[in-house]
Amino acid sequence: MLPYEIILKKRNGYPLNRSEIKDFIQGFVRNTIPDYQMSAFLMAVYFKGMTAEETAFLTQEMVNTGGVLHPAPGKITVDKHSTGGVGDKVSIPLIPLLACCGAVVPMISGRGLGHTGGTLDKIESIPGFKTDLSEKEFLAQTDNIGMALAAQTDRLVPADKKMYALRDVTATVDSIPLIIASIMSKKIAEGVAYLILDIKTGRGAFMKEFDQASSLAHKMVRIGSNLGMKVKAVISDMNQPLGFAVGNALEINESLDLLRDQGPPDLVSLTVVLGSHLLLLAGLVQSAAEGEQLLKEKISSGQGLKKFRQLIEAQGGDWTCLNQNGHLKTARHRFSVAASRDGYIASLDPVKIGFATTLLGGGRRKVDDVLDHEVGIMLKAKQGDAVVEGDVLAEIYYNNENCLENALPNIESAIQIVTHSVEKQPLIKKIIEPVS
Amino acid sequence: MLPYEIILKKRNGYPLNRSEIKDFIQGFVRNTIPDYQMSAFLMAVYFKGMTAEETAFLTQEMVNTGGVLHPAPGKITVDKHSTGGVGDKVSIPLIPLLACCGAVVPMISGRGLGHTGGTLDKIESIPGFKTDLSEKEFLAQTDNIGMALAAQTDRLVPADKKMYALRDVTATVDSIPLIIASIMSKKIAEGVAYLILDIKTGRGAFMKEFDQASSLAHKMVRIGSNLGMKVKAVISDMNQPLGFAVGNALEINESLDLLRDQGPPDLVSLTVVLGSHLLLLAGLVQSAAEGEQLLKEKISSGQGLKKFRQLIEAQGGDWTCLNQNGHLKTARHRFSVAASRDGYIASLDPVKIGFATTLLGGGRRKVDDVLDHEVGIMLKAKQGDAVVEGDVLAEIYYNNENCLENALPNIESAIQIVTHSVEKQPLIKKIIEPVS
Repeated sequence: MLPYEIILKKRNGYPLNRSEIKDFIQGFVRNTIPDYQMSAFLMAVYFKGMTAEETAFLTQEMVNTGGVLHPAPGKITVDKHSTGGVGDKVSIPLIPLLACCGAVVPMISGRGLGHTGGTLDKIESIPGFKTDLSEKEFLAQTDNIGMALAAQTDRLVPADKKMYALRDVTATVDSIPLIIASIMSKKIAEGVAYLILDIKTGRGAFMKEFDQASSLAHKMVRIGSNLGMKVKAVISDMNQPLGFAVGNALEINESLDLLRDQGPPDLVSLTVVLGSHLLLLAGLVQSAAEGEQLLKEKISSGQGLKKFRQLIEAQGGDWTCLNQNGHLKTARHRFSVAASRDGYIASLDPVKIGFATTLLGGGRRKVDDVLDHEVGIMLKAKQGDAVVEGDVLAEIYYNNENCLENALPNIESAIQIVTHSVEKQPLIKKIIEPVS
Repeated sequence: MLPYEIILKKRNGYPLNRSEIKDFIQGFVRNTIPDYQMSAFLMAVYFKGMTAEETAFLTQEMVNTGGVLHPAPGKITVDKHSTGGVGDKVSIPLIPLLACCGAVVPMISGRGLGHTGGTLDKIESIPGFKTDLSEKEFLAQTDNIGMALAAQTDRLVPADKKMYALRDVTATVDSIPLIIASIMSKKIAEGVAYLILDIKTGRGAFMKEFDQASSLAHKMVRIGSNLGMKVKAVISDMNQPLGFAVGNALEINESLDLLRDQGPPDLVSLTVVLGSHLLLLAGLVQSAAEGEQLLKEKISSGQGLKKFRQLIEAQGGDWTCLNQNGHLKTARHRFSVAASRDGYIASLDPVKIGFATTLLGGGRRKVDDVLDHEVGIMLKAKQGDAVVEGDVLAEIYYNNENCLENALPNIESAIQIVTHSVEKQPLIKKIIEPVS
């Protein structure tokens, strides 16, 4: 079938078969199908969607455009992926904790764009930490210390890199089958056997509604299973930032706090829930409760922190730069946002807080923006907390007055105080079991 | 607004304002907006449509990417456009007939692709006829003899040429606002004051349903009016080919027959209706009836034929090549398709007959296909006609046995004979008056 006919078929709402999807993806990667046909195709997919079968074909054919890694042969390989939220630094402490529990974690992660941060951006707050590992380095490190955290290489899923670059400039990022194929193709190419997904829902998530998030979670679990991977999903709340810290170095510091058994309750809770269900999925524990207990022991015993140091140093990071509090250096200046009246925190808009962090210099508005890792926001209260007029609600870490001025209105308007008491929302909304 | 934001806004179903449309079209023509963003935009327009206002903006901004002609200053300039049908050669006899009635006809036309033929392809059956006139030649000829029939130049609506090339390969041709903007921008750039549209409806038309055709007609009339052109539309039947001849030289011969007062009734009727309503619109007659009478006089007196010869010779065509019947040379071989039983012609599928002509070599499957002008099909009966077993229903004109073999099943299956009598469908379905 000609590329034109494949676009037409999708545009008219008919499902594509495997060979049509294969031809289109292969042709695109080999440059026999030009960008303008791919972008029309992507827009047609945006409007007409894809069946579960088509999405699985797409995922597999994207994988087939590159190589597949086989990290730590004979060992249990696991990974975690989040659909993205503000203050979501779970991957950072979870990698060493899982590695402490006997799993191998070959994590390939991404950078942030827009209001959410990226795990690679956060970890690069640590001076010297190298994320562009070669495949050889990546595999050697997972073999040696049971974990690695690196950027995608050119050889892994080249179709995804090329498609994502187009989606980014043609308003076709937020299409469910394209999101699924992008995420799952990378996880398959990375060679993990067990995957836990953190599907965010709420105002700061791509999936605003629980039902949408649940539908996405079920689809990803099923497609993972179709492609030979065991996948479980947790649906978690993203109506406010996770933890107190938003901003690259601040989030690493909060991760270090967690590994010192001083993490904020919501961050600890989500880290332990995701970790324990992943350990259970991988057969490393017999129940989620056993997994929770194991992970908490790894935190309280300091083993997790020790393992994290191992990860940092293996990838060239400078552990000695941590100050006497065991923290990375943060921005020179602080600005406190205080409560304008007595009451309860009704909401902490994560989009506004994430965007404010970007305006402070801590996030990207364009792909080539250079980050200031030191800036960000430390929240001092969370949704449902009682506050008194004058209480500090957030501390802004900034290096530049103009940036502060731009960011401040977003932060102030992100925080809503009401007079009546406000119920705290549960963090974990649903756990979706793997398809057998 | 960034190109990305314009695509996103359209994708999300919001109407674009004039400056957004202007920026996008200008950016595309100046190559600051790449093809892949335009093709995503076109697909978004396919799915989300455009309001009448947006379509008028789009049309005008497309015109503004190039120059505008001012043919025959001070004279009454008219044109006719058809949305395309099989056997539709109306423009050929209508140009000289209108020119005989005091109108100036600066017609810029196109080529055929798929199952319908193009006016330029048909007229090029006449040896020597040159359609690639320069603007200077085009204007001089309309000044001198009141008519010209030429291809679009590079200077007129460059946005349309560039957009059409993309639409053609990205399955975004059949979008109403894009069709309207493409047609109307060229008519505006061509500089005509009065336009009659022949909107085809039926199985051989782009608009299968009357209601769709009617809606398109009303939109085009309104947009023409918004942009300062007087436009009237006729909705005509395209459930069977128009006239008896399908194929380039055969259609020129049928046009010559019409100008010799020997045209098939349906072709004569549509030509006279379109012509008379255009003359009325342009104020050259006081009623459609007066227009009909005038046009019929121009036919019966031979003035139309004489004027046609003037057109042909002005553009380098060889009138002396006509044979003793006054016809162009046609293909060497004939094959007769006979009725397999007694009955009535229930249908003559124009898509199959058009496609068969393409298979004979008379149409294009790809843009760069070279045409055999001599081949085609002469129908011997039309829908509703009574036939007896063995009657010749169609004669196939072919130069190549293989082509005949490929085309024949399409022709045979295009003709349906039933035992009960069949009512003839009216050719003219509706006339849509201009917006004042």
